Amino acid sequence: MTLWNQLFGSPAIDQVFSDRNTVQRMLDVEAALAQAGAQLGIIPRTAAPLIRAHCRVDELDLATLAASAAQSGNLAIPLVLQLTANVSAAHPEAAPYVHWGATSQDVIDTGLVLQVRDALRLIAAGVTRLEHATLQLAERYRASPTVARTWMQHAAPTSLGLMFAGWSDALRRHAGRIETVLQTDLVLQLGGAAGTLAGFGGRGIEVAALLGAELGLPVPAMPWHAHRDRLAAVATTLAMLVGTLGKIARDVALAGQTEVGELAEPRAPGKGGSSTMPHKQNPVGAAVVLAAAVRAPALASSILTGMVQEQERGLGGWQAEWESVPELVRVTGGAVHQLVAVVEGLSVDADRARANLDATHGLVYTEALSRALASKVGRTVAAALVAEASRRVRESGRPLRDIVSSDTEIARHLDARDLARIFEPASQVDAAAQLVDRVLEQARSSPDARHHA
Amino acid sequence: MTLWNQLFGSPAIDQVFSDRNTVQRMLDVEAALAQAGAQLGIIPRTAAPLIRAHCRVDELDLATLAASAAQSGNLAIPLVLQLTANVSAAHPEAAPYVHWGATSQDVIDTGLVLQVRDALRLIAAGVTRLEHATLQLAERYRASPTVARTWMQHAAPTSLGLMFAGWSDALRRHAGRIETVLQTDLVLQLGGAAGTLAGFGGRGIEVAALLGAELGLPVPAMPWHAHRDRLAAVATTLAMLVGTLGKIARDVALAGQTEVGELAEPRAPGKGGSSTMPHKQNPVGAAVVLAAAVRAPALASSILTGMVQEQERGLGGWQAEWESVPELVRVTGGAVHQLVAVVEGLSVDADRARANLDATHGLVYTEALSRALASKVGRTVAAALVAEASRRVRESGRPLRDIVSSDTEIARHLDARDLARIFEPASQVDAAAQLVDRVLEQARSSPDARHHA
Amino acid sequence: MTLWNQLFGSPAIDQVFSDRNTVQRMLDVEAALAQAGAQLGIIPRTAAPLIRAHCRVDELDLATLAASAAQSGNLAIPLVLQLTANVSAAHPEAAPYVHWGATSQDVIDTGLVLQVRDALRLIAAGVTRLEHATLQLAERYRASPTVARTWMQHAAPTSLGLMFAGWSDALRRHAGRIETVLQTDLVLQLGGAAGTLAGFGGRGIEVAALLGAELGLPVPAMPWHAHRDRLAAVATTLAMLVGTLGKIARDVALAGQTEVGELAEPRAPGKGGSSTMPHKQNPVGAAVVLAAAVRAPALASSILTGMVQEQERGLGGWQAEWESVPELVRVTGGAVHQLVAVVEGLSVDADRARANLDATHGLVYTEALSRALASKVGRTVAAALVAEASRRVRESGRPLRDIVSSDTEIARHLDARDLARIFEPASQVDAAAQLVDRVLEQARSSPDARHHA
Amino acid sequence: MTLWNQLFGSPAIDQVFSDRNTVQRMLDVEAALAQAGAQLGIIPRTAAPLIRAHCRVDELDLATLAASAAQSGNLAIPLVLQLTANVSAAHPEAAPYVHWGATSQDVIDTGLVLQVRDALRLIAAGVTRLEHATLQLAERYRASPTVARTWMQHAAPTSLGLMFAGWSDALRRHAGRIETVLQTDLVLQLGGAAGTLAGFGGRGIEVAALLGAELGLPVPAMPWHAHRDRLAAVATTLAMLVGTLGKIARDVALAGQTEVGELAEPRAPGKGGSSTMPHKQNPVGAAVVLAAAVRAPALASSILTGMVQEQERGLGGWQAEWESVPELVRVTGGAVHQLVAVVEGLSVDADRARANLDATHGLVYTEALSRALASKVGRTVAAALVAEASRRVRESGRPLRDIVSSDTEIARHLDARDLARIFEPASQVDAAAQLVDRVLEQARSSPDARHHA
Repeated sequence: MTLWNQLFGSPAIDQVFSDRNTVQRMLDVEAALAQAGAQLGIIPRTAAPLIRAHCRVDELDLATLAASAAQSGNLAIPLVLQLTANVSAAHPEAAPYVHWGATSQDVIDTGLVLQVRDALRLIAAGVTRLEHATLQLAERYRASPTVARTWMQHAAPTSLGLMFAGWSDALRRHAGRIETVLQTDLVLQLGGAAGTLAGFGGRGIEVAALLGAELGLPVPAMPWHAHRDRLAAVATTLAMLVGTLGKIARDVALAGQTEVGELAEPRAPGKGGSSTMPHKQNPVGAAVVLAAAVRAPALASSILTGMVQEQERGLGGWQAEWESVPELVRVTGGAVHQLVAVVEGLSVDADRARANLDATHGLVYTEALSRALASKVGRTVAAALVAEASRRVRESGRPLRDIVSSDTEIARHLDARDLARIFEPASQVDAAAQLVDRVLEQARSSPDARHHA
Repeated sequence: MTLWNQLFGSPAIDQVFSDRNTVQRMLDVEAALAQAGAQLGIIPRTAAPLIRAHCRVDELDLATLAASAAQSGNLAIPLVLQLTANVSAAHPEAAPYVHWGATSQDVIDTGLVLQVRDALRLIAAGVTRLEHATLQLAERYRASPTVARTWMQHAAPTSLGLMFAGWSDALRRHAGRIETVLQTDLVLQLGGAAGTLAGFGGRGIEVAALLGAELGLPVPAMPWHAHRDRLAAVATTLAMLVGTLGKIARDVALAGQTEVGELAEPRAPGKGGSSTMPHKQNPVGAAVVLAAAVRAPALASSILTGMVQEQERGLGGWQAEWESVPELVRVTGGAVHQLVAVVEGLSVDADRARANLDATHGLVYTEALSRALASKVGRTVAAALVAEASRRVRESGRPLRDIVSSDTEIARHLDARDLARIFEPASQVDAAAQLVDRVLEQARSSPDARHHA
Repeated sequence: MTLWNQLFGSPAIDQVFSDRNTVQRMLDVEAALAQAGAQLGIIPRTAAPLIRAHCRVDELDLATLAASAAQSGNLAIPLVLQLTANVSAAHPEAAPYVHWGATSQDVIDTGLVLQVRDALRLIAAGVTRLEHATLQLAERYRASPTVARTWMQHAAPTSLGLMFAGWSDALRRHAGRIETVLQTDLVLQLGGAAGTLAGFGGRGIEVAALLGAELGLPVPAMPWHAHRDRLAAVATTLAMLVGTLGKIARDVALAGQTEVGELAEPRAPGKGGSSTMPHKQNPVGAAVVLAAAVRAPALASSILTGMVQEQERGLGGWQAEWESVPELVRVTGGAVHQLVAVVEGLSVDADRARANLDATHGLVYTEALSRALASKVGRTVAAALVAEASRRVRESGRPLRDIVSSDTEIARHLDARDLARIFEPASQVDAAAQLVDRVLEQARSSPDARHHA
Repeated sequence: MTLWNQLFGSPAIDQVFSDRNTVQRMLDVEAALAQAGAQLGIIPRTAAPLIRAHCRVDELDLATLAASAAQSGNLAIPLVLQLTANVSAAHPEAAPYVHWGATSQDVIDTGLVLQVRDALRLIAAGVTRLEHATLQLAERYRASPTVARTWMQHAAPTSLGLMFAGWSDALRRHAGRIETVLQTDLVLQLGGAAGTLAGFGGRGIEVAALLGAELGLPVPAMPWHAHRDRLAAVATTLAMLVGTLGKIARDVALAGQTEVGELAEPRAPGKGGSSTMPHKQNPVGAAVVLAAAVRAPALASSILTGMVQEQERGLGGWQAEWESVPELVRVTGGAVHQLVAVVEGLSVDADRARANLDATHGLVYTEALSRALASKVGRTVAAALVAEASRRVRESGRPLRDIVSSDTEIARHLDARDLARIFEPASQVDAAAQLVDRVLEQARSSPDARHHA
């Protein structure tokens, strides 16, 4: 246990990367390797079941393993030693064939790939939930007016639904990227001491094929001991996802500010309280996701930096992955976990959103007004007229529509019907709603929905 | 000009991101926008050719543009002003319709996408050259013996060709990733002031379709003003590529060390000289690529960090892209450019590689020896026997084969024929050559060759 | 020119890192080296003035320099060649003594140190202006009430002045850190080909002493060709500063949101406009600073990553500095430049700040209320009572004070005088004002003010 | 336990950041707070000992704490709840005064500062051991000849001692930086709910003074809830240290390559073995340090990115510190721990180093040769002559000295005595040894040795 796991992590993913499961996944590789070797007659057929029977984490002493790893420099060496000893105690004749033909990195990497696969599937499921929940929000609020904020300032009308559709559309792309990684980048590692498969007496490629089939992993053309682009693809795919999660979380946090009040994280007893201020309802979910968004780019950058691995097996870059890949997966999983709760329970105050649209006394309609004027008096004159009117709004606090209506210069070009059209959010919100519909439609047109475009 | 461009950049990509081309690409967007608007009757049909005629960088004053950008906070505002003024001077009636319905970010983002597309195609072409050159090396040296080095220590025999095949196989994957990005992530940006397309009077989606067709860009379901995952995909795809280029460069540098001497960058007059040591032949290409590999992960990390953009248009994260996306593309382009020269002109000293294999007096055969012994006496005893023999090699400098031959304990289990087989690199190099063949075969089996797996 | 320089950079610092100045600073090193060598009789006394006379950037062909740098791998080699040719044309007898005893890196590094020193002084001056401006704001608004926001939610009363004091206090610490770097980390580089000073015939240390004196740089115990911690100290000191500038910019942006309206960047014609929305007043200064805050950590991380330099002169890590150190300095300088304008011209709406404090109908007083109750009924009961009252405020919109006054349970413990005290921001704002006074006092107690604590 | 702790961490620092100690340090803050409050009469005098008696981690349920932290969003809230419940069970009258006047962040931050202080002292002690060990190596090998390698190529003669002195000199600077951070950046956090100290009834500054005294921490002018530059200074100071450790580790790894053989990590049973190659002696220490050097820059970059914290208490940036600050400290501590073992037990093969100097048949003397010729025939002619001679060395394998001796053109300018001087490493190694002496002297001249310059 560490104190932070339940805040920053996700129970399911913590399970995948627990010490026990890390070791078990490596043992799974050893078991499958024995099986493949026996099937091809590279090791005695009888040895495989005897070895497999001991490939259980419960038989290993993890404390000794951890201590020995600090000596040997990796986990596989002491794992193979303990496994060999256990096999040897029961069936000495099978012991020589443990780990036959493989090298430490084969077991470490393939074990990691198996863990990453499990974790990515969990993350993908969470992203699907997020996509679903945000699509529902998009549909529900497709034409619900609010103000678009650009550069953190009120800009022009939009709909709440379009914000949710933007989230959803991005999540769909990320789901596609995760799927791509799951299908193409999570492959078997098997190379032996020098990455040549020489230890299998000319039958290494067959062993790899059987091992891949057993573990459900594609077999690459050659080992990838010092080529880590596939893991980098995992890492950057996660970091990109976290970037979008962070964008959503920031939107939630900004919309949840006391003065804005359009969105709120779901309330739960004890959730987001304060040790001193009983009224506080801190957006804990957003905080966790935003913290992840601070951390994930750097974790990905470590993994990218570590790609520059020396020769046939690296020194430093490879070892740096051992903690940073799981950490990035964990941080991502935690962010997904928290955001699912936030989005599925999100409070939306559509009335407040509608009211906020009017906070600037109509300045949010200047784009429509300018466009209408520009076609009459040209862009430059139009901009000057509207800027002047805007200034008067800010200074007087009077509505823009009033000021514009009483401006003789503007009145020469725009009549009451023009103004009615301009100062009505409906047309602009309609445009937003049309875009929402496109997003909904695209999401529904599965199975195509899974590609990124 | 900056002094470093020619060292760290690539002429073709510097061209793509030159100030002039940056502006021209934005003007291309304005021209296509006018065309699309006119075609749909949103702006007067006559306005489009009048506007297009002025969408030429030569008509703009770039110094004023740059100065104004510092006031307005972006390049599009002064660009639209200058363009409008130019149109207005010649055809005042067309001037109001410049930039009609769009917002600054539409022009900035789409212009950037067009530049990135051009640059990615150049980079892809370079990667293809690298793939081709490394495949040739792999084929030529497929069974040329050398020593695999793991943890920067001699490990076991391999072939030079397998190292080259590993490079090539990775490059193929990167080519696939770049292709994916080119096809799915480089899309049109068009949203108008609030990202709703409201400025096009209900016909925004049609405008987007025409504009995308004109510029050759896919049209996304909705604008992506504050969703930057596609640019992050560009950035991370480049950073991953640079990671592999860096791995290759480090392999070249390590193999080119004075004491190793297996590879050397091509010589050219004045290339890699020293201001004080006339004999020096510095690996300048590797230095540039390795410098890129130090920089690219951080640049990607900036872009990932910047994804957390506020609301409908961000503050800080978006603006950070303006310099860091081009910089990352440029650094990548420079690394490709340099590595093409290195790899296409690479000197390979196969004799030296073969000789280095013997530097440890046969210790590189301990894996084969251990395996042979393990099947007779078990892994533990075998490991102990071989470790002891290895110790004697290191202390005496005598060949392992001699020591093993005269070891009575070992001799009980391995006869002369066994030893002949073990101490012959051929079998191990054969295994490596088989893997090279798989890589060659896969590369040839296009069009499948383009996917990553 | 690049289009972005005036937005993201600072004119003075761009000058320091211009191509011309980069070359001139290297020439300054060559001139001082000749002088030192001549003074010690290592080169002919007559050679020095002849060499110095040609150490002028106007005599060099920068385009050729840049092109040659791409061949030789660094700028110093072609610079020495051109300088030697120029000296040789006029005074062939002096030409052999150009660059005598030095290596390229000596000239490149010392030139860079001179540029960084100039730039840090400019940045320090900007930080001092920021400190001064924020101190004035702190003093002026020391007891001006507003609401402290934690986790982006209203928390409890504070003063505007305390926010400004927090900015100022942090800026003072950064000023101290910059001063430390200026004094300890910007030192002479002189080592010769192998970093041994062997090229000076046993008098290298004397040469270094004279050269350091001439250039105003401390002389380190030994050369630092492959030890880059001092440059990393420069980089991290800048990145830390940018972190604080970013914090201030975010505070400005958040306080400047349409719904909050407490602070605004100074208005200027054309500043922060929109291409489509004439009313917009985008916080351009904050955007530039926040963009810097996205970029600086990554640039620093590159420089930290690059510290792992090989042997006596690195391959990759060193070269990566050539663009990333100037870029980080430039980004920092630009952020300082923009924030000076923002802070010196900051609009503060104290009335709006005071009004915002009441937005939650008194919930910001729950901490004071809870404390008062806790001493009567214990923390747990108090928390429950206040949480319940808060709930009623949120649901009814009635002021907390009214609800509390009419709560019989609470009334048993707190009388009207207690409530008057609790619901009066003065005491809490007084506490903030006392802290402001401490900061003002500390700032005034120079010269001690310059250390960080 | 996690499997990697003993490889990548350090036992002592893992102890400092254990869950138990994290909680205990927060309890220490609560205890001292009660003490200070009682001493000033802010809470009843009798309450303090009753509260202090329960500030023991053994009384808390850590599993519940961790689970509750996931709800409340921080550790302090459930900690205060449990502590209050424990106090209340025994002494209900004291319970209301637990945590009096403070906010969660006060306890979390000050607890972290206490942990960081303990860890920095451990790290500083390790750095001192490294400094001491490297100084001894510098002294012992001060004039032991080897070749300086630049751009990973043989350059010119130097001494082994100068390499060690370079390490030591850098370590001394880092020790100074750590000392600075310990003295200036590790300060008390106490601010209360809004960072105003309002909860202490006007006596907050006195409370802070007493609390600081009790905990041995300086009291800053004002709270620093959202100003994190001091923690960033901790982080960057550690990352810089790791950069230098990485540089040293890379030097060890490069010098330990099979073909180079100048340095080797100490041997220990089971240390750096291979699961398949009994002869392998992997540089595990260097691997761990280099892995740290891949990770630390990114961790520091997270912390720098996280500095942009909102308003009076941040959302995301602050929370990101909770895992990344301890992780950076841990990674640094592990790197120090491993490198101490490497450096204190380093095998140096001075004979091999001397022999390597001759690997290029004298090309390492071209700098001396060029300089000697340049003063006779000018730099350009000299360079050409030496380049030609170098080419002949490379092609023929004959020693440069022979080639130069038989070159009639060169012989016109340099006689046998000149050549004897040039081709003698002694003079160049003497220069290196002089620099070593400077470093030794500076290290001895304590207490001044502790500042960075």
